[in-house]
Amino acid sequence: MLILVTYDVSTETETGKKRLRKVAKVCTNYGQRVQKSVFECRVTQAQKEELERKLLAIIEVTEDNLRLYRLVEPIDKYVKEYGNFRAVDFEKPLIA
Amino acid sequence: MLILVTYDVSTETETGKKRLRKVAKVCTNYGQRVQKSVFECRVTQAQKEELERKLLAIIEVTEDNLRLYRLVEPIDKYVKEYGNFRAVDFEKPLIA
Repeated sequence: MLILVTYDVSTETETGKKRLRKVAKVCTNYGQRVQKSVFECRVTQAQKEELERKLLAIIEVTEDNLRLYRLVEPIDKYVKEYGNFRAVDFEKPLIA
Repeated sequence: MLILVTYDVSTETETGKKRLRKVAKVCTNYGQRVQKSVFECRVTQAQKEELERKLLAIIEVTEDNLRLYRLVEPIDKYVKEYGNFRAVDFEKPLIA
């Protein structure tokens, strides 16, 4: 299945930026980053559960919002994209 | 159909924040805001095209990224949400 992971965190704080980098790092093991806080991941049911478990270990539920959506396929037909993709924080090293 | 609109813009600049507010204002006429830059919209094909047209008039294609995804329904079954939703900019007035 193809899922969309969207993550809402304040990147105005250093800790928020760090959590976003960690979320991105985990998600890119399952798919690709398409926006700063949006990731398309092709997963099995088991992988989806594993991904959720890993993300829940990173996020702060009191401050962040994480959503996982099932997408209609084929993706080429059911997604429309406009503009450029600028992953500003993605190239920076992950500070533990 | 149910679509997800995800919008990537730098909110570190005032003009980016302004565009995000405008995008949010348009999208909320078609659905609801679920994250800072993510909107769930229930639309007909004609409304989808209208929404796209309106959004394209707002965004800066050289700086922003806009994506529209078709979602698998029922949404209750195919979306998982964790954490809180904090729409920080949403309550601020739209400055023209």
